[in-house]
Amino acid sequence: MSGEEDPTQQQQPEQEKKPDEPPSAASDAPQQESGSSSPAAEPAAAAAEQPAAAAEPAAAAAAPAAEEKPLSFRALVLTGHGGYDKVKLQVKTMAKPKLKAGEVLVRVKACGLNFAELLGRQGLYELLPSPPVTMGMEGSGVIEAVGEDVNDRKVGDRVIALARSGMWQEVVVVSADRTFLMPEEMSFEEGAALTINYMTAYMMLFEMANLRPGKSVLIHMAAGGVGIAATQLCQTVQDVTVFGTASASKHETITQGGVTHPIDYRTKDYVEEIRKISPKGVDIVLDPLGGSDTQKGYSLLKPLGMIIVFGAANCVTGQRKNLLAMAKTWYNQLSLNTMKLMQSNKAVSGFHLGYITDEQLFGRTMSTLLELYKQGKIKPRIDSSYHFEEVTEAMKRMHERQNIGKVILLPEPKKEEEKPKSNAEAGENVEKNDAAISEKKEEEVKAEKD
Amino acid sequence: MSGEEDPTQQQQPEQEKKPDEPPSAASDAPQQESGSSSPAAEPAAAAAEQPAAAAEPAAAAAAPAAEEKPLSFRALVLTGHGGYDKVKLQVKTMAKPKLKAGEVLVRVKACGLNFAELLGRQGLYELLPSPPVTMGMEGSGVIEAVGEDVNDRKVGDRVIALARSGMWQEVVVVSADRTFLMPEEMSFEEGAALTINYMTAYMMLFEMANLRPGKSVLIHMAAGGVGIAATQLCQTVQDVTVFGTASASKHETITQGGVTHPIDYRTKDYVEEIRKISPKGVDIVLDPLGGSDTQKGYSLLKPLGMIIVFGAANCVTGQRKNLLAMAKTWYNQLSLNTMKLMQSNKAVSGFHLGYITDEQLFGRTMSTLLELYKQGKIKPRIDSSYHFEEVTEAMKRMHERQNIGKVILLPEPKKEEEKPKSNAEAGENVEKNDAAISEKKEEEVKAEKD
Repeated sequence: MSGEEDPTQQQQPEQEKKPDEPPSAASDAPQQESGSSSPAAEPAAAAAEQPAAAAEPAAAAAAPAAEEKPLSFRALVLTGHGGYDKVKLQVKTMAKPKLKAGEVLVRVKACGLNFAELLGRQGLYELLPSPPVTMGMEGSGVIEAVGEDVNDRKVGDRVIALARSGMWQEVVVVSADRTFLMPEEMSFEEGAALTINYMTAYMMLFEMANLRPGKSVLIHMAAGGVGIAATQLCQTVQDVTVFGTASASKHETITQGGVTHPIDYRTKDYVEEIRKISPKGVDIVLDPLGGSDTQKGYSLLKPLGMIIVFGAANCVTGQRKNLLAMAKTWYNQLSLNTMKLMQSNKAVSGFHLGYITDEQLFGRTMSTLLELYKQGKIKPRIDSSYHFEEVTEAMKRMHERQNIGKVILLPEPKKEEEKPKSNAEAGENVEKNDAAISEKKEEEVKAEKD
Repeated sequence: MSGEEDPTQQQQPEQEKKPDEPPSAASDAPQQESGSSSPAAEPAAAAAEQPAAAAEPAAAAAAPAAEEKPLSFRALVLTGHGGYDKVKLQVKTMAKPKLKAGEVLVRVKACGLNFAELLGRQGLYELLPSPPVTMGMEGSGVIEAVGEDVNDRKVGDRVIALARSGMWQEVVVVSADRTFLMPEEMSFEEGAALTINYMTAYMMLFEMANLRPGKSVLIHMAAGGVGIAATQLCQTVQDVTVFGTASASKHETITQGGVTHPIDYRTKDYVEEIRKISPKGVDIVLDPLGGSDTQKGYSLLKPLGMIIVFGAANCVTGQRKNLLAMAKTWYNQLSLNTMKLMQSNKAVSGFHLGYITDEQLFGRTMSTLLELYKQGKIKPRIDSSYHFEEVTEAMKRMHERQNIGKVILLPEPKKEEEKPKSNAEAGENVEKNDAAISEKKEEEVKAEKD
């Protein structure tokens, strides 16, 4: 693969045959273990023995003759740690995927790309299993089969699905508990964009921090997936002031989305800019950057304020692991003792959705988010959608922070005549600086983020 | 003074004459500076030129002849850092205290004793000015005079007053903004007990942490002033589980006050006890201890939980500064980096009321607390009241954790025939272990706290 040199070159699927490996998404759900020892799961699992090629799940369910046909599906597999070329499109073939009790088979229609996958590709995301591994933590699709003991899902249901990894494939087996029914008016792209970003933003703002009327929030990378989600969620509370950093070309969009004070971090010192507007600082800082930015965020906090560190984007500079950037981020990370916290009346917290294992919390948060969606209070902004064979382009777009909103991956093959399904074609919404990045060497990209 | 050896020996007031020093409480209130340069403050200040001996403020205001008489008042003065004997009862005399704009003169009826004053006496409270200094951060009393620009306070008003120091005296000049009108049904003792403890507990539970229905809270020293306040405030939220540490003799009282699971930290490991009842831990830890207890509290937190460190009681062991205990507390204090916080999804914060300077926050919190008092949802528990000449006994009671609730100091001289005004006479509410402490050497007290 030469994806690194030419990101627009599309992948040709590799053929791989693994008859005994079900297309399961990785999950911590304990019911998977209990289901595996249950012989009663067999009859229900038979419902899953249908061709992956069946476009209409209802039709497929009514075609017993198809049982003989092996399941063949496309998957994006991380083959090793490194650059863009380590994510390969493969076609897997397998017979008879058997559903355990509590599981469902989902035909995936859209998947979300997250920063965690960029980190994972570089070997910097400890929760991703070692390669080879199918990536992807979120997606949406249609249920094609249900295992035993699944009472609240049925074939044909449009669902959002969550997993630790394994969502970037055409069909996936997940625990029914990790699926959420989609409202009728929600598109598959929106469904795939809702989970990770909005759950992260929601838990940070309302579970960890205590966002209430009149508070102020600093949102870094305000045009990114979590940034847009957090901005929208801030609008659900009265009189919240949002400071949002993004490159100047994105200011109009994020302002329309609810950012009160957009700040171009590339040309201005955001600490100074915020102090000019609010000399006392801010109440909440959402920090996906880490390193020295955490120290700056801490210094900006008002008394009783809280900074939530939820990433180390400063580590991710080039497309491969950058030891210097990592060392700098680590060296500059905020370390503190309780005396210092007492004298400043401040709170420091860390957030990482991947380490949350409370299923009730997931369920409660998702139903709140789906309710907010139905009320029209939140709406995922889709930046662009790429077919699996265009995954390099998708990763590159996110890595270089060209996106405004969510980057989506589509499992279905790209049609020959189809143009790229992107809302931001040919540099639209991308300032000159952004467009120029793809021509720079990766070392030069390190200071640029939003 | 031999108060160290015999805490029950009462002090004889020392006479001191400082004609030019007004009995001001120390405060950061900016209006004091602006007022001092205002010549218009003079006429209003004349109202304050009345004898300190006037028991009835209304009568005093109507007695212009009294202007000639110097103001004489009793005050508890820290004369140096060290043991109990460093706090001396003095009588100060002074002519014509002039009120600046925005100030009021309060005849103090009751004062609160706080852990901060024990620390301050030992030279461990950095916000207390250097000795000699009149101590005391909170009190209640009656307004005897008002300065210019004070429109919402009048002579005769019963108020709670707050200051950085200087409240332990019979009359005090404070900024009107730092006074709060008392409900009719509130006693002066209750007024003096409400401010520091309840504001601390309220701001921690509702401003920093995000106490909501169904959460669990660990309250150390649950029989202490902040402990009882926090327990009562937890009752204002549905379905909150309170784990409270205290010595066994106090369990009945704190259980009646709302502690769900009392734990005798002296005979049991509280971490183990909590894990037995709630294997996943707790949502909020209020930590006044510091050192290794902070580490234990952190380990007990559920994901998305928060520990708030608001003291270092582990530093205070003997009655004098204990360098070994301090070193141990410092050495064992929790120090952490943001990566660790992210992986555990936890929040660490510090709280120190003394460093809060937001007057609006004080006002908002006090009016909430006064409203909760009127509704009968909170009620300060007075452990005991001591006259100024009994200050050594008062400090000793708190230092040795014999109190259940607030220890109050009364400026008015003790009448000869009067018995100690204590709710806990002759060992009532005090277990044998507690009673024995006063006979121990101070080094032996260090491991005991609640």
